[in-house]
Amino acid sequence: MRFDEAYSGNVFIKSHPNFEESEAVIYGMPMDWTVSYRPGSRFGPARIREVSIGLEEYSAYLNRELEEVKYFDAGDIPLPFGNPQRSLDIIEDFIHKLLAEDKFPLGMGGEHLVSWPVMKAVAKKYPDLAIIHMDAHTDLREEYEGEPLSHSTPIRKIAEHIGPKNVYSFGIRSGMKEEFQWAKENGMHISKFEVLEPLKEILPTLAGRPVYVTIDIDVLDPAHAPGTGTVDAGGITSKELLASIHAIAQSDINVVGCDLVEVAPIYDISEQTANTASKLIREMILGWVQKRK
Amino acid sequence: MRFDEAYSGNVFIKSHPNFEESEAVIYGMPMDWTVSYRPGSRFGPARIREVSIGLEEYSAYLNRELEEVKYFDAGDIPLPFGNPQRSLDIIEDFIHKLLAEDKFPLGMGGEHLVSWPVMKAVAKKYPDLAIIHMDAHTDLREEYEGEPLSHSTPIRKIAEHIGPKNVYSFGIRSGMKEEFQWAKENGMHISKFEVLEPLKEILPTLAGRPVYVTIDIDVLDPAHAPGTGTVDAGGITSKELLASIHAIAQSDINVVGCDLVEVAPIYDISEQTANTASKLIREMILGWVQKRK
Amino acid sequence: MRFDEAYSGNVFIKSHPNFEESEAVIYGMPMDWTVSYRPGSRFGPARIREVSIGLEEYSAYLNRELEEVKYFDAGDIPLPFGNPQRSLDIIEDFIHKLLAEDKFPLGMGGEHLVSWPVMKAVAKKYPDLAIIHMDAHTDLREEYEGEPLSHSTPIRKIAEHIGPKNVYSFGIRSGMKEEFQWAKENGMHISKFEVLEPLKEILPTLAGRPVYVTIDIDVLDPAHAPGTGTVDAGGITSKELLASIHAIAQSDINVVGCDLVEVAPIYDISEQTANTASKLIREMILGWVQKRK
Amino acid sequence: MRFDEAYSGNVFIKSHPNFEESEAVIYGMPMDWTVSYRPGSRFGPARIREVSIGLEEYSAYLNRELEEVKYFDAGDIPLPFGNPQRSLDIIEDFIHKLLAEDKFPLGMGGEHLVSWPVMKAVAKKYPDLAIIHMDAHTDLREEYEGEPLSHSTPIRKIAEHIGPKNVYSFGIRSGMKEEFQWAKENGMHISKFEVLEPLKEILPTLAGRPVYVTIDIDVLDPAHAPGTGTVDAGGITSKELLASIHAIAQSDINVVGCDLVEVAPIYDISEQTANTASKLIREMILGWVQKRK
Amino acid sequence: MRFDEAYSGNVFIKSHPNFEESEAVIYGMPMDWTVSYRPGSRFGPARIREVSIGLEEYSAYLNRELEEVKYFDAGDIPLPFGNPQRSLDIIEDFIHKLLAEDKFPLGMGGEHLVSWPVMKAVAKKYPDLAIIHMDAHTDLREEYEGEPLSHSTPIRKIAEHIGPKNVYSFGIRSGMKEEFQWAKENGMHISKFEVLEPLKEILPTLAGRPVYVTIDIDVLDPAHAPGTGTVDAGGITSKELLASIHAIAQSDINVVGCDLVEVAPIYDISEQTANTASKLIREMILGWVQKRK
Amino acid sequence: MRFDEAYSGNVFIKSHPNFEESEAVIYGMPMDWTVSYRPGSRFGPARIREVSIGLEEYSAYLNRELEEVKYFDAGDIPLPFGNPQRSLDIIEDFIHKLLAEDKFPLGMGGEHLVSWPVMKAVAKKYPDLAIIHMDAHTDLREEYEGEPLSHSTPIRKIAEHIGPKNVYSFGIRSGMKEEFQWAKENGMHISKFEVLEPLKEILPTLAGRPVYVTIDIDVLDPAHAPGTGTVDAGGITSKELLASIHAIAQSDINVVGCDLVEVAPIYDISEQTANTASKLIREMILGWVQKRK
Repeated sequence: MRFDEAYSGNVFIKSHPNFEESEAVIYGMPMDWTVSYRPGSRFGPARIREVSIGLEEYSAYLNRELEEVKYFDAGDIPLPFGNPQRSLDIIEDFIHKLLAEDKFPLGMGGEHLVSWPVMKAVAKKYPDLAIIHMDAHTDLREEYEGEPLSHSTPIRKIAEHIGPKNVYSFGIRSGMKEEFQWAKENGMHISKFEVLEPLKEILPTLAGRPVYVTIDIDVLDPAHAPGTGTVDAGGITSKELLASIHAIAQSDINVVGCDLVEVAPIYDISEQTANTASKLIREMILGWVQKRK
Repeated sequence: MRFDEAYSGNVFIKSHPNFEESEAVIYGMPMDWTVSYRPGSRFGPARIREVSIGLEEYSAYLNRELEEVKYFDAGDIPLPFGNPQRSLDIIEDFIHKLLAEDKFPLGMGGEHLVSWPVMKAVAKKYPDLAIIHMDAHTDLREEYEGEPLSHSTPIRKIAEHIGPKNVYSFGIRSGMKEEFQWAKENGMHISKFEVLEPLKEILPTLAGRPVYVTIDIDVLDPAHAPGTGTVDAGGITSKELLASIHAIAQSDINVVGCDLVEVAPIYDISEQTANTASKLIREMILGWVQKRK
Repeated sequence: MRFDEAYSGNVFIKSHPNFEESEAVIYGMPMDWTVSYRPGSRFGPARIREVSIGLEEYSAYLNRELEEVKYFDAGDIPLPFGNPQRSLDIIEDFIHKLLAEDKFPLGMGGEHLVSWPVMKAVAKKYPDLAIIHMDAHTDLREEYEGEPLSHSTPIRKIAEHIGPKNVYSFGIRSGMKEEFQWAKENGMHISKFEVLEPLKEILPTLAGRPVYVTIDIDVLDPAHAPGTGTVDAGGITSKELLASIHAIAQSDINVVGCDLVEVAPIYDISEQTANTASKLIREMILGWVQKRK
Repeated sequence: MRFDEAYSGNVFIKSHPNFEESEAVIYGMPMDWTVSYRPGSRFGPARIREVSIGLEEYSAYLNRELEEVKYFDAGDIPLPFGNPQRSLDIIEDFIHKLLAEDKFPLGMGGEHLVSWPVMKAVAKKYPDLAIIHMDAHTDLREEYEGEPLSHSTPIRKIAEHIGPKNVYSFGIRSGMKEEFQWAKENGMHISKFEVLEPLKEILPTLAGRPVYVTIDIDVLDPAHAPGTGTVDAGGITSKELLASIHAIAQSDINVVGCDLVEVAPIYDISEQTANTASKLIREMILGWVQKRK
Repeated sequence: MRFDEAYSGNVFIKSHPNFEESEAVIYGMPMDWTVSYRPGSRFGPARIREVSIGLEEYSAYLNRELEEVKYFDAGDIPLPFGNPQRSLDIIEDFIHKLLAEDKFPLGMGGEHLVSWPVMKAVAKKYPDLAIIHMDAHTDLREEYEGEPLSHSTPIRKIAEHIGPKNVYSFGIRSGMKEEFQWAKENGMHISKFEVLEPLKEILPTLAGRPVYVTIDIDVLDPAHAPGTGTVDAGGITSKELLASIHAIAQSDINVVGCDLVEVAPIYDISEQTANTASKLIREMILGWVQKRK
Repeated sequence: MRFDEAYSGNVFIKSHPNFEESEAVIYGMPMDWTVSYRPGSRFGPARIREVSIGLEEYSAYLNRELEEVKYFDAGDIPLPFGNPQRSLDIIEDFIHKLLAEDKFPLGMGGEHLVSWPVMKAVAKKYPDLAIIHMDAHTDLREEYEGEPLSHSTPIRKIAEHIGPKNVYSFGIRSGMKEEFQWAKENGMHISKFEVLEPLKEILPTLAGRPVYVTIDIDVLDPAHAPGTGTVDAGGITSKELLASIHAIAQSDINVVGCDLVEVAPIYDISEQTANTASKLIREMILGWVQKRK
């Protein structure tokens, strides 16, 4: 009987109630206003939390339990509907505060553009930052129909910010010809179609470096993630994505933050996408949080 | 930025954070294991809270705002899956404690059987209790296929407990012939098909009495509440149900508790049923809570 | 334990197991191949039977129980996919046999064209036959894009067969200008938009006559019947349709057969359309079968 | 602006292929980036056009056929995702051009904010303009969480632009207390809950005046329009909304433009909302276009 | 024309009408009242039968046709809603009777707990019984939130009943740490993540032994079985599960009964889960029934 | 036949507005009236076009862009509902005209029977024609329940027309025993279950020959194509189907026409099936059109 305090209704399963004592912080970035196709990812974080109640607290992959890691769920960052610039500023400010408190940021989108201010803030703290990016799409546009703030641009922005050679994209199967050319000409790594095998090759080269990992759920085939804005055939399986998370966990890189974006629940009656996202986040917590040095 | 305390994620909009200071308490009873047709109402309370974020805090009907009433959201009562008796005992115990603290109980189902232990507890505190029951179904069975604990029995149980002449059912359009006969022979009131007009006739006869109001969302026509276990054509409109709530608010009866049950979100992609339920609860809070003497 | 005979899985609730002893026969006509908009009504009869398990066996409207009437469920008539003419011939042959055994035919569609061979067969037995037709659409076309066998034509066909002045349409809100003109010029009755009130005026004029009643579920507003091929706003409520069935039950006409068509389950996740159809059929059984003289 | 040739894409049924010869122009405004609850109305116009193929071309209400009116479908106005100000500017520019060619503008939303630039442009041409507004919500906020460009503000903006006493809202059932007070204090008309009866009283007072009519589909009860961003119980029926359109058609006001907004197809598997919208638009074309003087 | 007997509406395709002559018996166990997450599997058996009409009667894998095996469909065992103990007793009694008649039991769930009384009854007849278990979950809990009768416990119960070393689980990817430990400490076999390869290794060690095979549909990845209570990413493909069924068919073990559980149709609009289940059952019939000695 | 001007309706992304200048012609064949299970593929072509707006115009697989190929979208061929023979005649006539203009035909179904008149017309122009057929089903029946025009017969028809040894089926996992026998006895090639590997073996044997490729979307596993009439477990992945298209593109065969059939959007809320189909068509355009000599 919870009579002594407000009901803590919808937090990611096993979240720690105390911010100070927590090593990591989970937060939602419920923005979807620049997407060019199907909106709805603003509801991703809330649904991922809701279905996390069905998760086992133990990972049979990593042989660890959620109670071994302290993470605080800060809820969804309130963002002004329809104002991308102000939204990104609020997110960046939020992340600066998290990093000032030395917390591991674990974000849930929302559209992929929300990763841009997070990566920028993380790059300020870790000048030697590298980015691992798993996605169906390049996200390397300079602008979309005249708008520089678009869900198609975040990787271009961070690549220009920290240098394209520090950005590693995996699983890419869609983009404009110019985007692939830009990457090639600027020394950015793109592994087309596959994730696990090329990732295993790249990881040793990043040993010891601080790395931020950003995962767009649509790197999965639509069979495994129908609930997303842009479904694109020919993706990887959830088994492969899990294995990729584990490969990072077992590598010598220093994960300093991460996010999982673009879960749009309305397109998936079965809620498999949100359930899968909650499982991926469990593995990210168990495998990555304590890698940070 | 909520860094100082755990994120209070999914509570009914504008819930008060402090139990002691609150006049009313909202709680979920996520049980659906005795239903004979379609299960799923266990997820009703969580979804009603989630969509309540879309509600206006002001009622244009009652000219009142939610901040005028203090109510605490106690979350869902944890109930043991598949064990009706233990579940009902836990609910009854919960309500006794609420009443001991002089709180107004406002419950969300779950299947209709959850109302039985609540009404029993309320009847102990208010010996002169009357019941107002809005529903498509009589719910007057003694048992269902041999089970005395069934979603088809709660009104029979409370009628036998406080006397059938103290129970008033409205909007009933389905039941067994024997149920209607039992009601007739035992002096229980049943208004078939209609709610608002017969209710207006009955209310003056209950003036000054403590009354518990139990509403099965399926009193609404399936057009207005597709997300419920048993959809039954020929029901009332949501406009009529709102007017019925307002008629009670304007009457001289003393509402001492209430519930809204049987919202099963999975059958309603549009979520209109949960949204409607959240609006009904707002009107119940604004119209009924402070009637209690 | 049903070890002695095959499991009778999906029949309309309380169907009688014996054909000879039954007064009425329920049958499905799972054809949807001439529809011009959304197909899917071929699955209507099976789904109506399936959800009928959730029906009360007692009608609180008519104060009768299903066990008071003996009706046999003959299943779905096997029809050759994509061959309208052969399908209609098979249906007509089926009805002739039913009528030869003096059974009351109660059909479930399927698209509305299936009513044409049934009405033709019934008209052969009852030369003085009148038709009561409830529908959103006139269905008075001579052909549809060159095809004389179309779901838009059945009322035209029967009107030409038994004389337009013997056909009474109610609730009509859509059709071609030419269809309304044809009806007017040929003395056929059309009540636009409304059913109950005009029906009450017509019924006394048909006293004593044999009448076949054909109901397209889309006479209901889409709010009440989203699961149909052609949803058309501005229809009647299920409360009004139930009252119309009861008005016929209490009239002096001689109902000699009836059908309910165009339930297409796939467009209605809540299954309210199929549930409503099963309730309507219960009322048709209880109110109409024994009117036959 | 595709004024010189037929739009190559999905068009509303019976659209005229030639812009110059057309009296009215239909266009979509596929913007949903400022909504505070559920997005998705960007796909409304395309789906309304798609399902219009299922419409009868004749109105049994008005006894007119679509071929009696020439209207051109200009397609969806290309709008920059996530940039409300630029989107509104583009819309306003589009409308100025339409009005310069003396076309009757008939817009499809999109969120309600798109009506603001349209009404502003129309007010420039018709200084004596009045607004008839049918909606569940007041839409009278000055800003929403700090954003002056929000789907909650369009009626406030036009009311301040042309004077609150020239704005007439009907069917309103939700809003902030302050919004209702602002309307009252400033002489703006609000009819709560009802549309048809108060509209019939107001229409004669507007005789001869140019009037723009803006309809938010959520003025309908969720039973009749589940496919919209904010479902709000207690609304009117589609029958009542059709009758309201016809009341305007038969009045002496001079309709000079109109829109229908907030159809969000994803929340409505049955597509009844888009089908209803297409029927409403047919009636608006047949009843209103030629009223313009 | 089926005039001479009741319509045998919803049986598994090609079921034999005579119990005595049949070698195997198919039956449904429509219970879902102890599930801790999403209910709905009570409707699994009915939907599997319904969609089996779409199956080819020939297996291109096994080169056999359904008419080569006689199996009787006994329908769903009537179970008392909300009473797990009585339900399990009824199931156990049913199986004892089947086994007394020397029938091969082929059950459809329903939640996984229904397998417990079946396995217990089969173990009584075959003292040397081994269990092959394919599932995403260990199902090895002693109790769930205080309830010993839970969908999380059936494998623990049978393991304790026949000895853990006689139980072989495959495809397991979720469970509590304690469950995996219990298995390890007690000599029970668990193959994590994979099914086909470890199964091929185990099968020869079981040669000649009587084996009961219980398959939880969620051993499949959610991509292949979205319609189940607990969707858990990282599962196997339907191709792999089919191959696993065939590996058993070609082995030297003696399959003496089997079940397929946890199909919950409401979460899968496409009905692929029920269709897949019906195909799996066809292969189980063709590959396993006649292996029994 | 709208050959003289751009189709006024929804077109496939980047379609060329001029028929004469185009090398290929895309067209829909919206027929589904002979299907024996679930209808709805009549809406496949329209939905594929609609979602094609979300496609990248560049193929990262083939390193080509859509603007490198000129293709005209002729819209859907108007077909008479419910009349298979007339529909097939209209299609055949349409194809003869296309071929007379030396256009590459790229058709979208619709049920698979629509491929029969196309293949017949193509065979007339290319007497040495071979067929590559990817499907879950043999489609080799002579008739279905007495109907020679059935979605189960098109491959049989073309095999008899051009000789069974010229027909190569891949991915087949369902059919009647007799169909497999007929293929074997008549020298027709069937690769069961797999596509890519056997295709790579066959392609060199067809070098230089004119080949028509017909793909039933259900060759994909239901996980990858839930939106189709007959979902059949055990299929290939979209990754494998893409690779098969690319294998053909890189081979020495001469593709002279192709189609993709059986997309039925209503069964797939996520629209992944239509999105996948649009991507497959992009690859077919980029990889196959200019192979024609």
